[in-house]
Amino acid sequence: MTDTRLDPVLARIDAMLPEALERLMALLRIPSISTDPAYKADCARAADWLVEDLASLGFTAASRPTTGHPMVVAHGGEAGAEGRHLLFYGHYDVQPVDPLALWDRDPFDPEVQETANGKVIRGRGSADDKGQLMTFVEACRAWKAVHGSLPGKLTIFLEGEEESGSPSLIPFLKQNRRELSADIALICDTGLFDAKTPAITTMLRGLLGEELTIHAANKDLHSGSYGGAAANPITVLTRILGRLHDENGRVTIPGFYDGVTELPEAIRQQWQGLAFDHAAFLGDVGLSVPFGEKDRTPLEMIWSRPTAEINGIWGGYTGDGFKTVLPAEAHAKISFRLVGAQDPHLLRQEFRNWVEAQLPADCTVEWKAHGNSPAGVMAIDDPAFETARLALGREWGVPAAYIGCGGSIPIAGYFKTYLDMDAMLIGFGRDDDQIHSPNEKYDLECFHKGIRSWARILAQLC
Amino acid sequence: MTDTRLDPVLARIDAMLPEALERLMALLRIPSISTDPAYKADCARAADWLVEDLASLGFTAASRPTTGHPMVVAHGGEAGAEGRHLLFYGHYDVQPVDPLALWDRDPFDPEVQETANGKVIRGRGSADDKGQLMTFVEACRAWKAVHGSLPGKLTIFLEGEEESGSPSLIPFLKQNRRELSADIALICDTGLFDAKTPAITTMLRGLLGEELTIHAANKDLHSGSYGGAAANPITVLTRILGRLHDENGRVTIPGFYDGVTELPEAIRQQWQGLAFDHAAFLGDVGLSVPFGEKDRTPLEMIWSRPTAEINGIWGGYTGDGFKTVLPAEAHAKISFRLVGAQDPHLLRQEFRNWVEAQLPADCTVEWKAHGNSPAGVMAIDDPAFETARLALGREWGVPAAYIGCGGSIPIAGYFKTYLDMDAMLIGFGRDDDQIHSPNEKYDLECFHKGIRSWARILAQLC
Repeated sequence: MTDTRLDPVLARIDAMLPEALERLMALLRIPSISTDPAYKADCARAADWLVEDLASLGFTAASRPTTGHPMVVAHGGEAGAEGRHLLFYGHYDVQPVDPLALWDRDPFDPEVQETANGKVIRGRGSADDKGQLMTFVEACRAWKAVHGSLPGKLTIFLEGEEESGSPSLIPFLKQNRRELSADIALICDTGLFDAKTPAITTMLRGLLGEELTIHAANKDLHSGSYGGAAANPITVLTRILGRLHDENGRVTIPGFYDGVTELPEAIRQQWQGLAFDHAAFLGDVGLSVPFGEKDRTPLEMIWSRPTAEINGIWGGYTGDGFKTVLPAEAHAKISFRLVGAQDPHLLRQEFRNWVEAQLPADCTVEWKAHGNSPAGVMAIDDPAFETARLALGREWGVPAAYIGCGGSIPIAGYFKTYLDMDAMLIGFGRDDDQIHSPNEKYDLECFHKGIRSWARILAQLC
Repeated sequence: MTDTRLDPVLARIDAMLPEALERLMALLRIPSISTDPAYKADCARAADWLVEDLASLGFTAASRPTTGHPMVVAHGGEAGAEGRHLLFYGHYDVQPVDPLALWDRDPFDPEVQETANGKVIRGRGSADDKGQLMTFVEACRAWKAVHGSLPGKLTIFLEGEEESGSPSLIPFLKQNRRELSADIALICDTGLFDAKTPAITTMLRGLLGEELTIHAANKDLHSGSYGGAAANPITVLTRILGRLHDENGRVTIPGFYDGVTELPEAIRQQWQGLAFDHAAFLGDVGLSVPFGEKDRTPLEMIWSRPTAEINGIWGGYTGDGFKTVLPAEAHAKISFRLVGAQDPHLLRQEFRNWVEAQLPADCTVEWKAHGNSPAGVMAIDDPAFETARLALGREWGVPAAYIGCGGSIPIAGYFKTYLDMDAMLIGFGRDDDQIHSPNEKYDLECFHKGIRSWARILAQLC
């Protein structure tokens, strides 16, 4: 099947790959570490570099100041046949490079290296997220070179604080609501399903964090003088938290599963068809048996089921040797991963009620809230999803998967909350890219096919 | 009732109290802090002072070197009418004085002070244990002054490392087994039951310490990527330790109560007759309701019932803020207070079996033992106990109580284990003596009545 609009663009991408790579190398050489104030000027330089590059493609582009690092916003093109206005999101800032001694070369002197698995682009930011964001820019460039114009109405929105908690993001979205609203957002900061299978991430778990302190006596007591008669807050804490799950691994807090729906049958079947290696997933970290809910696969557990996990616990004497103390207090940090329509605010109250109902006499509990975000569930009944999925499948030669993500990527939720805009998360990273670690890399194949993938998606969506 | 042997001794004690006090002051001025090497010479000086004083009473006394501080051993007297050979134990070393700023005066410049509750001897070691050990020495002195000889066959054994873990004690007992064996030991390092009621401590709880580490994955995991599917060792730890007690507060480890017997009816009735203020006992530390076994009084709980207490717990992220980690391991320190014939070695194994039987797949447990001592249950059917109890009652004007002690005083157990010798714990401390704290004191009344108490006991036992 030939496509007279697309085929010459793909050919152009192939022919111009060396130049595209050179441009990425130039961007990778700018050490735009957002969390370290020493690199503030470099972050601004990376933003300026992108503004200049986008302007050269006909975008109206600007580096927009914030109280932190600037945002890059670029508008260009005219609505195409499908009439959609697309917003593309990526981030130009990178993680710190410590420990530097574990790098094989200067993290900001990137190069293409031959490896057993093919050519890789080695350097900080190559995969997270400069290499990924440039796949979209290069697709636009090739389209412009062939057709003289961009493929459709596009906004490019690049953040410089993603690796440092995005402090300016929500204010910027609120202040520029109208300007940034589009029909759908494309976010390129995720990975393939496996080395060869492209994916669209359609389910992101939400997160609710809680910290509690159980108080008992008004001071630490000696377990000889008081042991047996005085309340031990560590014992109280273990009794309560030990009941967080029932014998089937289900969370016992009343109301916890409100808003949790079973996976649609089509998605369940598609996930069953994925060659996910459950044994290797657990085996790689020294485990063999799924720990959580009975009758759920690990893939379901991490992508589509809510959790309650104790992330930290402390109380009493924790040093060397022994001290027969009955402490005055004991502490725990607990997080819940949320799915579907679970309401984090309601759930926080339900959890607190559940703990407080179990407190014995003389014990009190003190709470500290640690943030919350609802789950992200993409509206895959929007035809744009199936269009993009088919386009990805044509590029990679295998059908693209709709997948979940156990972690929480706030940007998709922010677009929904502040701009009422759905998002499609499409990325080309591989599990071994070592993002956030020394010797980060991005496979040249992922860069190349990533550019081609966006060209195919833009040809269909715009 | 007049006692022609005893009455002149009591009169002598009363008459010579100022001189007895002067001698105690001289001993208190020696800063014999055993745990601080800077005071090594002072410890030796305190031992020498005691040797000289005991020799002046006709004892064959010597300061006996150890690898630490010397032991004072003195033998004297001839068996009296009852034929018993008595060994008296005390310790001449004292606690450090930090924080010095909280003392009202130099801790080693003692003085007698008037207080709302009468005269007190203020200074480090006044109650723990120099003032107490001198009650016995002064009773011997008065007896010798009146009768020209000691009241019976006596060995005095004074340790200089009690406040620093007694490292030389067991080797010394083993090496001098025959020399130190007597019919019964008298230990003066405990307190009255309350301000006016004398006591013999007949039950000491034993102690078993355990530390465990639960291991799961081979490294810390991200709760987004693995939460739900991977074992969380903190969750495992809380589930297991949360089951340590049943809903009635009883420890659930199989075999745990083997060797635990109900209190003899006579002791139970006697304890019920004690004016123990349960409300104040708990109220003073901010509590109101006994936490442990149902249908037991706090006094029973702390004196005669075994316990299982979590003294420390830690795992995962415990710093400021939040980290969504599934840690590779979680830890706890647990101690058991033992009573009756509970076997610490057997119990350690039973506890370990109980934990290991509850471990889920992929989890392992690592153990660290933290010492063990069986409970001390004195053989109160030995007539010496009732004899001493009646003698104490005559001195204080109220019947003396047989009491328990929630803590663990190892010396009584060591005498039993290494010398096959029972011990009677009789002391005259009060709860507000502030031993181990700034402004330690010993009531002049306790010192005076303590000396008279020993005179009465010696008159009956020797």
